Amino acid sequence: MTTLHEECGVFGAYDLNGNNVASSIYYGLLALQHRGQESCGIAVSDTNGSIKNISAHKGMGLVNEVFDKDALDRLSGNIGVGHVRYSTAGSSTRENAQPLVLNYYKGTLALAHNGNLINALELREELEKQGGIFQTTIDSEVIAYHIAKERIETDTAEKAVMAAMKKLRGAYSLIVMSPRKLIAARDPHGFRPLCMGKRGSTYFFASESCALDTVGAEFIKDIEPGEIVTINTSGITSRKASELPDHLCQSRCIFEYIYFARPDSVIDNVSVYESRIAAGRFLAQDSPVDADIVIGVPESGNPAAQGYAMESGIPYSTGFIKNSYVGRTFIKPTQSMRESSVQIKLNVLKENIRGKRIVMIDDSIVRGTTCQRIVTMLRNAGASEIHVRISSPPFLHPCYFGTDIPSEDQLVASGKTVEQIREEIGADSLAFLRNDRLNLLCRELPFCDACFSGDYPIAPPDHDIRGKQG
Amino acid sequence: MTTLHEECGVFGAYDLNGNNVASSIYYGLLALQHRGQESCGIAVSDTNGSIKNISAHKGMGLVNEVFDKDALDRLSGNIGVGHVRYSTAGSSTRENAQPLVLNYYKGTLALAHNGNLINALELREELEKQGGIFQTTIDSEVIAYHIAKERIETDTAEKAVMAAMKKLRGAYSLIVMSPRKLIAARDPHGFRPLCMGKRGSTYFFASESCALDTVGAEFIKDIEPGEIVTINTSGITSRKASELPDHLCQSRCIFEYIYFARPDSVIDNVSVYESRIAAGRFLAQDSPVDADIVIGVPESGNPAAQGYAMESGIPYSTGFIKNSYVGRTFIKPTQSMRESSVQIKLNVLKENIRGKRIVMIDDSIVRGTTCQRIVTMLRNAGASEIHVRISSPPFLHPCYFGTDIPSEDQLVASGKTVEQIREEIGADSLAFLRNDRLNLLCRELPFCDACFSGDYPIAPPDHDIRGKQG
Amino acid sequence: MTTLHEECGVFGAYDLNGNNVASSIYYGLLALQHRGQESCGIAVSDTNGSIKNISAHKGMGLVNEVFDKDALDRLSGNIGVGHVRYSTAGSSTRENAQPLVLNYYKGTLALAHNGNLINALELREELEKQGGIFQTTIDSEVIAYHIAKERIETDTAEKAVMAAMKKLRGAYSLIVMSPRKLIAARDPHGFRPLCMGKRGSTYFFASESCALDTVGAEFIKDIEPGEIVTINTSGITSRKASELPDHLCQSRCIFEYIYFARPDSVIDNVSVYESRIAAGRFLAQDSPVDADIVIGVPESGNPAAQGYAMESGIPYSTGFIKNSYVGRTFIKPTQSMRESSVQIKLNVLKENIRGKRIVMIDDSIVRGTTCQRIVTMLRNAGASEIHVRISSPPFLHPCYFGTDIPSEDQLVASGKTVEQIREEIGADSLAFLRNDRLNLLCRELPFCDACFSGDYPIAPPDHDIRGKQG
Amino acid sequence: MTTLHEECGVFGAYDLNGNNVASSIYYGLLALQHRGQESCGIAVSDTNGSIKNISAHKGMGLVNEVFDKDALDRLSGNIGVGHVRYSTAGSSTRENAQPLVLNYYKGTLALAHNGNLINALELREELEKQGGIFQTTIDSEVIAYHIAKERIETDTAEKAVMAAMKKLRGAYSLIVMSPRKLIAARDPHGFRPLCMGKRGSTYFFASESCALDTVGAEFIKDIEPGEIVTINTSGITSRKASELPDHLCQSRCIFEYIYFARPDSVIDNVSVYESRIAAGRFLAQDSPVDADIVIGVPESGNPAAQGYAMESGIPYSTGFIKNSYVGRTFIKPTQSMRESSVQIKLNVLKENIRGKRIVMIDDSIVRGTTCQRIVTMLRNAGASEIHVRISSPPFLHPCYFGTDIPSEDQLVASGKTVEQIREEIGADSLAFLRNDRLNLLCRELPFCDACFSGDYPIAPPDHDIRGKQG
Repeated sequence: MTTLHEECGVFGAYDLNGNNVASSIYYGLLALQHRGQESCGIAVSDTNGSIKNISAHKGMGLVNEVFDKDALDRLSGNIGVGHVRYSTAGSSTRENAQPLVLNYYKGTLALAHNGNLINALELREELEKQGGIFQTTIDSEVIAYHIAKERIETDTAEKAVMAAMKKLRGAYSLIVMSPRKLIAARDPHGFRPLCMGKRGSTYFFASESCALDTVGAEFIKDIEPGEIVTINTSGITSRKASELPDHLCQSRCIFEYIYFARPDSVIDNVSVYESRIAAGRFLAQDSPVDADIVIGVPESGNPAAQGYAMESGIPYSTGFIKNSYVGRTFIKPTQSMRESSVQIKLNVLKENIRGKRIVMIDDSIVRGTTCQRIVTMLRNAGASEIHVRISSPPFLHPCYFGTDIPSEDQLVASGKTVEQIREEIGADSLAFLRNDRLNLLCRELPFCDACFSGDYPIAPPDHDIRGKQG
Repeated sequence: MTTLHEECGVFGAYDLNGNNVASSIYYGLLALQHRGQESCGIAVSDTNGSIKNISAHKGMGLVNEVFDKDALDRLSGNIGVGHVRYSTAGSSTRENAQPLVLNYYKGTLALAHNGNLINALELREELEKQGGIFQTTIDSEVIAYHIAKERIETDTAEKAVMAAMKKLRGAYSLIVMSPRKLIAARDPHGFRPLCMGKRGSTYFFASESCALDTVGAEFIKDIEPGEIVTINTSGITSRKASELPDHLCQSRCIFEYIYFARPDSVIDNVSVYESRIAAGRFLAQDSPVDADIVIGVPESGNPAAQGYAMESGIPYSTGFIKNSYVGRTFIKPTQSMRESSVQIKLNVLKENIRGKRIVMIDDSIVRGTTCQRIVTMLRNAGASEIHVRISSPPFLHPCYFGTDIPSEDQLVASGKTVEQIREEIGADSLAFLRNDRLNLLCRELPFCDACFSGDYPIAPPDHDIRGKQG
Repeated sequence: MTTLHEECGVFGAYDLNGNNVASSIYYGLLALQHRGQESCGIAVSDTNGSIKNISAHKGMGLVNEVFDKDALDRLSGNIGVGHVRYSTAGSSTRENAQPLVLNYYKGTLALAHNGNLINALELREELEKQGGIFQTTIDSEVIAYHIAKERIETDTAEKAVMAAMKKLRGAYSLIVMSPRKLIAARDPHGFRPLCMGKRGSTYFFASESCALDTVGAEFIKDIEPGEIVTINTSGITSRKASELPDHLCQSRCIFEYIYFARPDSVIDNVSVYESRIAAGRFLAQDSPVDADIVIGVPESGNPAAQGYAMESGIPYSTGFIKNSYVGRTFIKPTQSMRESSVQIKLNVLKENIRGKRIVMIDDSIVRGTTCQRIVTMLRNAGASEIHVRISSPPFLHPCYFGTDIPSEDQLVASGKTVEQIREEIGADSLAFLRNDRLNLLCRELPFCDACFSGDYPIAPPDHDIRGKQG
Repeated sequence: MTTLHEECGVFGAYDLNGNNVASSIYYGLLALQHRGQESCGIAVSDTNGSIKNISAHKGMGLVNEVFDKDALDRLSGNIGVGHVRYSTAGSSTRENAQPLVLNYYKGTLALAHNGNLINALELREELEKQGGIFQTTIDSEVIAYHIAKERIETDTAEKAVMAAMKKLRGAYSLIVMSPRKLIAARDPHGFRPLCMGKRGSTYFFASESCALDTVGAEFIKDIEPGEIVTINTSGITSRKASELPDHLCQSRCIFEYIYFARPDSVIDNVSVYESRIAAGRFLAQDSPVDADIVIGVPESGNPAAQGYAMESGIPYSTGFIKNSYVGRTFIKPTQSMRESSVQIKLNVLKENIRGKRIVMIDDSIVRGTTCQRIVTMLRNAGASEIHVRISSPPFLHPCYFGTDIPSEDQLVASGKTVEQIREEIGADSLAFLRNDRLNLLCRELPFCDACFSGDYPIAPPDHDIRGKQG
């Protein structure tokens, strides 16, 4: 039950036979909704007609709230790009909704971005010194500017994207649409996922492969770190933006595997579900305990709990029922009431907990308050022992690449021993996943675990740049 | 993944210290939302003032959609009753939303009802012959009329409820609010659940105990079949409407345990979760199979799958990821697209299915089409064997007591052998829960299983009265 | 700029050729919107099919807000009835929106009502004593009950309406729709207007003739006091409910001519516009003054101002510009601001007022506060003299027949001389229309002027029954 | 009843005592709503705090629809700027709503613009060649860019505005807000109006003086053509952007006086109402006719009709009743119905027209169809003669400065004699205002009448730039 803010999701489609793609993008965004619930949008272009025009619909809220049948029907076009955006307080405005649609020297572009630049402020200042104006507070506008600038000097949109990428430092999985092309690009580190699929005459790009499944498309490949893939009527071309990205400098976000991504996604050939099962198995190997049942904190703790159960032989069972109707617009209980927000979302299955020794698996602990409340719920339900196992190491460092981790003083693990955290949350025992196990979760793919280790693949900026993710 | 329509849910609160109860009712209804997503409403009364006035707010949609902070703040009162209503096409109008609020000879009443009368048409006709007019198409208005009529002759509201109950035949769990009293009543058969709890100075009535948990209340008791419980400032009184309801004629709905109720509810001292675990265990005993993993069809198939896993020793695992963002307002894919509605809601965890022998547990099969599609999804994902186990017997008969079972010709099990059904859904093997196991699911409580057995506890009506549930 | 609440408006249509009438009713209600802005609704029936079914759509707000194209398209039927309802604080709920649709012994009825019964409480109590329940607080439900009751004993709906009318005392212009008939009825006093028109194969009933113009229909006749007109496939029939209502007991509401009705309506053969012109002329004859220009308080004061100008020879001019965009949802200025609500709705045409002697015509004075503010606005704009002329006599008595006149202690004219009122509003002179002129306004039609004279055509009730108008 | 699209309206406020200004801006925009009904917005800044931050709320729709109390309460700040935008099909998107809020090198700016640049395409292309990107299709973004660019080199925002103005050609009345300053600027030609007022400690800028009246402010002055007025905590300063704009090159839009502006506004010391009265008087002098009554086509034809009546001695009367409830969201009648859209908005006062000789005054004729329908309505109502008088000359030429006149081939006057137009609209006589009278309408202020005369004050562009007004 991690309360970390998710980042963003991108989805693109190109139907070479000229059929409308808006409804496929709608279903694709539904499948990526877990990556962002603040705002969403779709932009489309029609290669059938002679007029090169991009139309778009964006709004605050869930995909299902922003789009109705009328809105989809108005989005007529056989190329399109969509975006779901995450929610933080500061920058939660309609202006920041994506895709960005912009007019520039060579025409029109739409851009959807997942990630966070580390040099956005420098790049923005540079553009501002030349007279640039910005109407959003997101990095994505900086990227759009650079692509537009490069496009003046280059003869194709994909070359402009490539040229722009040389200036961008940080995390970005991009889908760029010109009136007749769809371009996907992933930063040389490969921080955020991006993949490609096909259904009949339609090609798709998606943040996660689960979205390809949802639209009935076959997975083709992951966009490689540093790769740019371009689709137009003449076919598909791939090029590498960066010559050097050797294996060592790649740094996929390990937290995609632990929490962000949907378990039915496969990222860079590693199944998210299997890496969570593996995390549970490692916890069972490294931090075994004698208990009656293993339970997960829904939903994200369940796969690791299943792994723990398989490895330990302790039966997997259900400890909590989640109320899936408590949505975003839920009215928070007032202080004077005994109901807490956690209790309204989760209810303990008392009959199954009473008198039992429990292994409770969660994916992470951030501030510690939620975990403490959940442990209390189990205790009140009559659990005789509560052993908490966390399927990730303790958070100790900020993330500059798209995860909204709170500042260090709010992290429960900051400056505390595991024993002190255990006491704070009220568990009988507590163990985290060992840092050296991370390597095995994603089958030895090079990854970034800076939030746990402080070992940043790119030097972190001097000032705090967070809160402007695309 | 049963697609049977749920029935309704009721929730009431009385704060003897005079505090507002609307927000507690809001949380209670959130917890009962699974019992009805079509419309909802709350009515409150304030015993503090001298004016006896009932105010109400109702609307089409989910609790979270119908109520915002403003609407709750306007509902000032220390007694209240709420309702969530299920969804069918025909009678899905604002007029049918509950609680009904009515003015009658002795003042004002609000009424929330879960269930279905078997003699509603007769009772309605009788009232119409006397000049009665009806503004809704629901049974609840017939009940309200009878209470109002009886109240003219009797000296208390609860006696009027009792007198009215002598005329009502069928299923009804009622909460009735007069300006200064809150009354709960359950039909003598006990078809639908109803229970009572307490938090500080506030008493609660709820369709299911999970709603008591949600508002932080302690469970006190189930309202017994035929019982009427009245709360007012002088305290709580209980009486029996019917002298005769001996043990044998009780008939709780067995499908509440199998599918309707939330697993974290306890109905008439039987844990819903445990009866589902038991169903899974029986399936494993009666219809064993050699397989690699046991999976449930989310969410309702999961507990029985866990029971099957425990009993058989085959590991419990995850076969499907459910997209919880695909809501009611979801735009259905057109025929021409390859995405089907099932695939958008559920995705197969291919990595976990490929090459495996699967036991797949679902709670029921109604028309068979959904089950067939899900089996195909597993097959396409590479399952080597698919063994379907259903945690209920085959549906063969209509229900007149509140469950919206389609007519016989649409039921897959109608006139077919299990082998024929297996073939239709494309499974390698298929087994249903044995009818004689039902008895054990609810620990020998007397129950109604007419939808499976055709053995109706009350003679069914000549004509079809379904589709007007409260 | 009278701030009296308007009453209600009704509109019905029957297309004998079987075409849909919902959109015509929509335009008809738009034309009657001035009679009620709180809520509105349309109910339709289809005589084409074999199923007798009435469908309806109702909601809070203006016709344009409650109905969109989808809502109209769903209302399929060739008979229909619509209603607009006025706005008061107390009973402003969705439940009270009309048309009422009810099921009763002989089937289904829809009812739209304009007026106010004087014996509604007695009738309601009588019904309640027999066990009747009420879900609204409007008189119209009492009428519906009586029609339903009578229908049991009689063989046609129109006879049931006639029988019910014998019990009803007060003001009612009714449109009643059964699945195959449309019935219009007007109380024997003829308090509220009701007329009939025709366009091709479609017959219409409307509160005012301006609505017939709007749908392109020709005026046929006014429904006479006490008359019942029935339309069905066999044609049109008329009957008289009451034998006695001789000329003397008729009592049309004089305030319809002065303020309520649209000036382009003709009621009982008297043009509303012309009666307002006449009122202005009488004021000029009876209360002449030497001045530079005559201005009206928009919109309702303008025709009388034109009449004053014609009679006096003083030029008609414009004194105020009304902001037609300040709608119902307008946010009231806070006390601390200098803008007043009146000033935001009206602005003085300073250039045209400065240094001039003004005759300002308004239709009535209720509380006096608005008039006082408007006079101040003129004074501040530099008017050298302000002579206020009111095109009605002073309000002194409550109305029990559908006009929401505040209680006597809030009426500026209560217990004050004209000179005292003049001083309070700050005018240089003030005159009201003489009571003996009313007779001439409506060309000697018998009328009710009880609000001015206290001379009630039916004995007023002991208790206050106001605020429940249909 | 001109159907020309209006342009835009701007309104700004600065409270030197630090009080919130959002609600005053709301009322100001309500008063300017006639200048644009498509979208609106308010941006505010707070000089009280140390953080320089601009917050904004914008949306599609009327002021009353876009802003509710919550939205206004969230706009906390003592400087603010608001905008209402007009409606055309093409560019009707949320992105184009104003004020534009942008971040640039020196911080943040908000900008509201009324007018149309003649060199916007050239300026935009120039910026794009330097890498600029555009997220809207409105001129205002070009202006914002130029101010931002100039601000890099200059030391104050007002100097940057001045420098930018040297590049802008065409019509612009601007309000620019930096976090601590409010700047108003008007193009050297003075095409569009802009004025200034004061209420206590608050200064206001407004497109029209009627908005100053609405917020209770005193008129201080018109911003002069080419003038820049800056308000900050140190007071008010004025400077001239252009040294040369001698009297001769000024060119106020004459159509503001004829139609756009509210009659209660005074623009550059000329009362709009009085210029309309004058137009009516000139028509009576130049094109007299013997008739019974003079009527105006509401609302815009009424003042000229009053002028005609005063000059001719023919009585002013009412010919049409306008339905003020037929709003923007009104559902258009289908072809098959007899009701036309004009008839639903306007109804003839038949009683007042029948048998009479009518002088009908309208402000302009664009396509001729509306005028033709209105003449037919009068004819059907029994008018014996219909003499149409138009208070402006015939439209013959496109406008490049903010008025959305259709292309020549759609103008009824294009290539036709007055006699031919008369025949087309079906009137008995027709006369337009003489071109040489325009001079007298605005008391010899220099003005632009290019839409009538083709005499453009700035050379028109080669290509069509219309449809992008701010």
